[in-house]
Amino acid sequence: MSTNRLEAFSDGVFAIASTLLVLELHVPPVGEGPLFALLVAQWPAYAGYVVSFLTIGIIWVNHHAMFALVRRVDRPLLFLNLLLLLVIGIIPFPTAVVGQWITDSQGAPVAAALLGVVFLSMGLAFGAIWVYAVGHHELALEGIDPGLARSAIPRFTIGNLAYLVGVALAFVSPLLSLLLYGLVAVYYIFPTLPGAKQTSDVRRSATGTADPRPGGSGDNDSP
Amino acid sequence: MSTNRLEAFSDGVFAIASTLLVLELHVPPVGEGPLFALLVAQWPAYAGYVVSFLTIGIIWVNHHAMFALVRRVDRPLLFLNLLLLLVIGIIPFPTAVVGQWITDSQGAPVAAALLGVVFLSMGLAFGAIWVYAVGHHELALEGIDPGLARSAIPRFTIGNLAYLVGVALAFVSPLLSLLLYGLVAVYYIFPTLPGAKQTSDVRRSATGTADPRPGGSGDNDSP
Amino acid sequence: MSTNRLEAFSDGVFAIASTLLVLELHVPPVGEGPLFALLVAQWPAYAGYVVSFLTIGIIWVNHHAMFALVRRVDRPLLFLNLLLLLVIGIIPFPTAVVGQWITDSQGAPVAAALLGVVFLSMGLAFGAIWVYAVGHHELALEGIDPGLARSAIPRFTIGNLAYLVGVALAFVSPLLSLLLYGLVAVYYIFPTLPGAKQTSDVRRSATGTADPRPGGSGDNDSP
Amino acid sequence: MSTNRLEAFSDGVFAIASTLLVLELHVPPVGEGPLFALLVAQWPAYAGYVVSFLTIGIIWVNHHAMFALVRRVDRPLLFLNLLLLLVIGIIPFPTAVVGQWITDSQGAPVAAALLGVVFLSMGLAFGAIWVYAVGHHELALEGIDPGLARSAIPRFTIGNLAYLVGVALAFVSPLLSLLLYGLVAVYYIFPTLPGAKQTSDVRRSATGTADPRPGGSGDNDSP
Repeated sequence: MSTNRLEAFSDGVFAIASTLLVLELHVPPVGEGPLFALLVAQWPAYAGYVVSFLTIGIIWVNHHAMFALVRRVDRPLLFLNLLLLLVIGIIPFPTAVVGQWITDSQGAPVAAALLGVVFLSMGLAFGAIWVYAVGHHELALEGIDPGLARSAIPRFTIGNLAYLVGVALAFVSPLLSLLLYGLVAVYYIFPTLPGAKQTSDVRRSATGTADPRPGGSGDNDSP
Repeated sequence: MSTNRLEAFSDGVFAIASTLLVLELHVPPVGEGPLFALLVAQWPAYAGYVVSFLTIGIIWVNHHAMFALVRRVDRPLLFLNLLLLLVIGIIPFPTAVVGQWITDSQGAPVAAALLGVVFLSMGLAFGAIWVYAVGHHELALEGIDPGLARSAIPRFTIGNLAYLVGVALAFVSPLLSLLLYGLVAVYYIFPTLPGAKQTSDVRRSATGTADPRPGGSGDNDSP
Repeated sequence: MSTNRLEAFSDGVFAIASTLLVLELHVPPVGEGPLFALLVAQWPAYAGYVVSFLTIGIIWVNHHAMFALVRRVDRPLLFLNLLLLLVIGIIPFPTAVVGQWITDSQGAPVAAALLGVVFLSMGLAFGAIWVYAVGHHELALEGIDPGLARSAIPRFTIGNLAYLVGVALAFVSPLLSLLLYGLVAVYYIFPTLPGAKQTSDVRRSATGTADPRPGGSGDNDSP
Repeated sequence: MSTNRLEAFSDGVFAIASTLLVLELHVPPVGEGPLFALLVAQWPAYAGYVVSFLTIGIIWVNHHAMFALVRRVDRPLLFLNLLLLLVIGIIPFPTAVVGQWITDSQGAPVAAALLGVVFLSMGLAFGAIWVYAVGHHELALEGIDPGLARSAIPRFTIGNLAYLVGVALAFVSPLLSLLLYGLVAVYYIFPTLPGAKQTSDVRRSATGTADPRPGGSGDNDSP
């Protein structure tokens, strides 16, 4: 299977999962009070929407960057990608749990930890795809230096560690934990931040050698 | 990242957000009265559906027209586009609020203003993408004259001003405010209306010079 | 705008609208009786699902067949297509109304008529796109004979008349009316039935002359 | 109609149906007890999500593998594919029924059997497409040996028999029946398991002869 097909299906799941998040924002029932106050009281649901939408959006961006380095897809890779999509597809559920329980003192830690566990599973599935593709050189583009490719792994690890910290933090301060998840998304947007350098280098090295497309994947880094 | 990928993902969000609008139309429960009367009583929900569907549809059209002039996408542009999609994705929520609260005298102004604020955010995110892309000539197609490109900005501004007026108008007449949002969508459909001339010129100039595709983006203007 | 873009966005709306239909099938609440009996009692919802899914599917097929004959898209055509999509997107709503009201003697005629009115609007929007595209020869493929193209119009008219009859029939027998809508979908699947000949001829004539794609649109007719 | 179009629309339905599954996971209402216990009590819904997501994902993979061998699509094939999509689109419904009824001793067998009947219908529709395409050599790629193609049919039959066993098993142990459905998905992931060899051979034979795409469909088998 060409990576194009896999990416098209994955794009569909990414786009749908992020857009379904809106269904967890509920219209306040008429007659329960002034609309403005009712809308403001739902702020945790909006915060969850923003954090999860950005997280899915960033994972989409990095999914493309990753598969720009993959030449072909075998069955185990296909299965790992399905696992990633299975986790992406479930994100609206813990997001909704956060939206409704984050203001309940008993439930808030569990809700925030649940979201972190799902984000962590996403990060691990993403990392597993990368490790598998890099470790099977018949799958990766020819120009990729395995050393450089491996050096991108610390970057995934940072995100996963942050999610792990977030899960623990949920039992101290659920809101700080949510904030941390949001910061991870922002961190992954900017590949030129300290610690992000390697990924860009890998990409540039690979595309410089093997990507024949005009305006290929190396272009999405700000200079 | 090529603009194709970004457009495909954006298309997904546009299509899903507009189609999810239908989920806010609720089936009247059996036994509450004659079906015809119950259906007619839901007219505000249908009006909201039409206004929001057309608004998303038009933004989709103009999103393509805009990215036809963009040669490549860097990380900040990607992030601005994610912000736009985040706003597009949330549109079904204020639309549903309007559908249920527009006939409630206390809540109607807040509901209509909320929809306007979301549309205004959409317009500002759209304008920010344009200003950023035009201001970084390594991103835009080579044939684009920056002066012409900049002259399209007033056109965005007109829409945003109309949304701003709509937000204020909501506190006088929520229904007139809804009508105004609908008119903005219709205004953006027809690029040959007075005030729309510039955009077409930019597009023609750019595609005439640099767009190698047969039937390229200059073709979508009626003569 | 190229027709490819328009078709991709339209495909999205078609696929999403047909898949959203499933959300109108409700899980019977535990404790209300034996599950099998509760599931069987929902048969009208399943019937509505099948009729609407097939209708959207067939319109999708014919939408592609139509746009295979269109060379480029101008703003009015874009707007007509948005109107069609707006109607397609709303189909899950009348389908759900039918599913819940078709067994209510008072509401059944209104529900079945509502579905017919929406299908009729869909048919009219579809016909309007065809008439507009055929009437503006700068939009159509060069090889199309306007006479042949015009001869496809009776075929659209048959479907629209059937929907009109269905709306009237709804007030006599709502179930027969549903059955008729289903038959229209089946009728449009098979272009070799009597009365469908012309459409195939148009397509063959057009693609034989001007469609350079291997396996182009003329191929979807059984010999 | 080219197979590309058909696959793009099918991909949309596959991606949407699998992502809609999440909407059947319900947020426990605040105040009904400790959140953790409430979440754990919903384990059947998660199990249903995983089984149905994987099943749709695998069918997507095999749908592509199948259409890689099809050269063109006629109307009956189009209709068979619509039937398959109609079944795929309904999967979230029996999945939700399982999620809510599997712990109800009276309803569990019916729920598990319903899911099996839907999966079986999916398998039969899939097999019907294959049999039809292989039986009409003007539709299949030229390099396909009909004998080899026919030898893939036992593989479909194994899955369908497993679903049939699952339906019967539902009346003995609904949970074992669910487990069996999950195993079928896992079975179809790995084409190198005993009994899967033939499919791979068909694919390799076909693509080796007639598929001109670099990295064509023969690549998705692990060596």
